[in-house]
Amino acid sequence: VTDTALLPSWRQGPTREAVLAFLDAADKLPPERRVAVLDNDGTLWCEKPQYTQVEFMLHELTRAVAERPELAERAEYRAILDRDRAALGQLGLPRVALALAQLHAGITPQEFEARARQFLTTELHPHRKVPYARLVYQPMLELLEALRAHGFATFVVSGGGVEFVRSVSLGLYAIAPEGVVGTAVTYELQRRDGKPVLVRTAQVLGGANEGPTKVANIQYHLGRGPIFAAGNSGGDREMLEYATAVQGPSLALLVDHDDAEREYAYVGKAATFTESESIGAVAKRLGWVVVSMARDWARIFPDE
Amino acid sequence: VTDTALLPSWRQGPTREAVLAFLDAADKLPPERRVAVLDNDGTLWCEKPQYTQVEFMLHELTRAVAERPELAERAEYRAILDRDRAALGQLGLPRVALALAQLHAGITPQEFEARARQFLTTELHPHRKVPYARLVYQPMLELLEALRAHGFATFVVSGGGVEFVRSVSLGLYAIAPEGVVGTAVTYELQRRDGKPVLVRTAQVLGGANEGPTKVANIQYHLGRGPIFAAGNSGGDREMLEYATAVQGPSLALLVDHDDAEREYAYVGKAATFTESESIGAVAKRLGWVVVSMARDWARIFPDE
Repeated sequence: VTDTALLPSWRQGPTREAVLAFLDAADKLPPERRVAVLDNDGTLWCEKPQYTQVEFMLHELTRAVAERPELAERAEYRAILDRDRAALGQLGLPRVALALAQLHAGITPQEFEARARQFLTTELHPHRKVPYARLVYQPMLELLEALRAHGFATFVVSGGGVEFVRSVSLGLYAIAPEGVVGTAVTYELQRRDGKPVLVRTAQVLGGANEGPTKVANIQYHLGRGPIFAAGNSGGDREMLEYATAVQGPSLALLVDHDDAEREYAYVGKAATFTESESIGAVAKRLGWVVVSMARDWARIFPDE
Repeated sequence: VTDTALLPSWRQGPTREAVLAFLDAADKLPPERRVAVLDNDGTLWCEKPQYTQVEFMLHELTRAVAERPELAERAEYRAILDRDRAALGQLGLPRVALALAQLHAGITPQEFEARARQFLTTELHPHRKVPYARLVYQPMLELLEALRAHGFATFVVSGGGVEFVRSVSLGLYAIAPEGVVGTAVTYELQRRDGKPVLVRTAQVLGGANEGPTKVANIQYHLGRGPIFAAGNSGGDREMLEYATAVQGPSLALLVDHDDAEREYAYVGKAATFTESESIGAVAKRLGWVVVSMARDWARIFPDE
C-alpha cells in the first residue's frame, strides 16, 4: 500500500501529514507494539443529537411497555417516557440506569446483540433519516484501514455498552467482537434443558468504561499499551495521555466537531480539562493532533 | 495446508481422526464462528509437580525476603516459606492469596510480565531440568496451528494469572496478549512526573477464572462463543460444555494425563463431576473426545 492511496477523504494539510508521518515512523517498531485504540461515540460514529445507545434504550423501553403496559407504572420508566427531567433528577442516574439495565436482564448476550444490530441497521437517525449504522465517519474508516496497512492491531475502546458496539463492529469497522472494549454487565451461567446458557444481569462490571477506567481496561483486555489513540471528549483524556506516554513514536488524535453544516458543531465540555481551558489549548499543551472535521475531512459520511 | 501435514506428533487413530474431521466440518462455517478456547495448565503446558505460577510466586517471595528480611515475619509468608500446611490451613487460602498478591501490588503490569518471562525462560523445572517455558505440549502447539490453518481464532482461557500467561503467549503459542483470558487483578492509574502509569493492586477482579467464570469471561472478553474447547480438569467443565452446546460442528477435548513415563499420570479429581464418575465416563456421557497422552501423542515436549 502506498501512502498516497491512504486516507483519500482526508484533505491535504498538516493533520493528514501528521498521521502519515506517524504511520511511517511506526513501521520501524516491532509489530507487537503497533496497537491503536479508538473511542466510538463522536470518534468513529455520530453521537448527536444524543448517544445512539440512549436512542436504543428508549426504543427498547417503548417496545417493552407496548408488550407489558404495567411497566409504565414504574417511576423510572415513567420519567424516561415522559422526558420528565425533574423526576429523572430526583430519581438519580444510578437508579435510572439500573432500571434500564433491568430491561435486558435475563436475556442472552446473543439476543441483546440481535436487537441492537436490528436497531442500528434499520432505525433512522432523526435528522439525517438514514440508519444509525450509516453514520460512521468515512475518514475514520480509512484511518482504521491505514493503521492496519501499517501493521497495527486496531481496537475500539468505548464508553458505551460493549455488546452494543460488538453487534456491528465486524461489519462497520472490520473489528471482531474481541477487539471491542466497553462498559459491560456481568453474566450468569444458567442451565436450560441441562445445557449451559449465559444470561445478562443488570449489574455493571467494574464501572463505566470512561476516563482512567479506559486505561485499566486496555491493560486488562489487551495486555499491551497503545501508541495511537483517538478520542473526542474528556472521557478519552487518560487514554490519549497514556498512548503518548511511551518511548518512540506515538500519536493522540482529538476529533473536533466544528462542522455544523455537514455534522454538528459542539465542544464536549468534558473535552476540556478545566472550564477555562479550550480544547485547542489542551491539545497544544499535550501535543495532541486536533482533527477539524470542517477543515480536514473532504467527506464525513460514507453515503455522501 | 493439506491435513496430512497437520498434527505430525499425533498418532494415527480415532482421536486424531476426530480432530481432523471436526476441522474439516468447521470449514463450512462462517469464519467468525470458528473460535477455539484452550485451558493452559495441564492442557497447553505441564502443571506438575505443581502449578508453574505457584513456583513463580515462591521464587518471588524468596527474592522479596532476601531484599527485605522483615517480610519473613509476616505469618502468611512464614507459613509458605516453611511449607507449614497446618499454619496455611489455619490462615486460610483467601488470606494467603492476598498476601501473595500484595508482593506485586504497586508494580506495573509490564514489570510483572518481565519478571514472569524471566522466570519462565530461565528457571529450571525440578524434575526435567529445562526451563518451564520448554514444557509446552508439542501436539497441542500443532493443534493450535491446525486450528489456525482452518481459519480459527485461537484463545487461551486459563485459571492462572492473565499477565503470567501473557508474558510468554506470543512466543510460545503465537497468541497475542489480548488473546489470553485469565484471572486478573485490578489496576490503578497513578501519575508519575505528570504522566499516567498503571500499577497493579492486590485485588482480584471478578474472582478466579475457573468453572462457570470461564464461560462468563469468554463472553466478556471475546464476545463470541467457541465451538472448540480443550481442557483437562473440572475447572474446564463448563467451558467444554458451553463449546458443544451449539448448533453445528463442535468439539470438546479433554487431555488425560496417563503417561507416568514421559510426563505424569494423574486424574485431576476435579475432572470428574462426582467422586463416583470416572473421567472416561464423564467424557462419554457428554460426547467429549479424551486425549490419552500415552496412546495419542508420539511426542510430548518440543525438545524430545
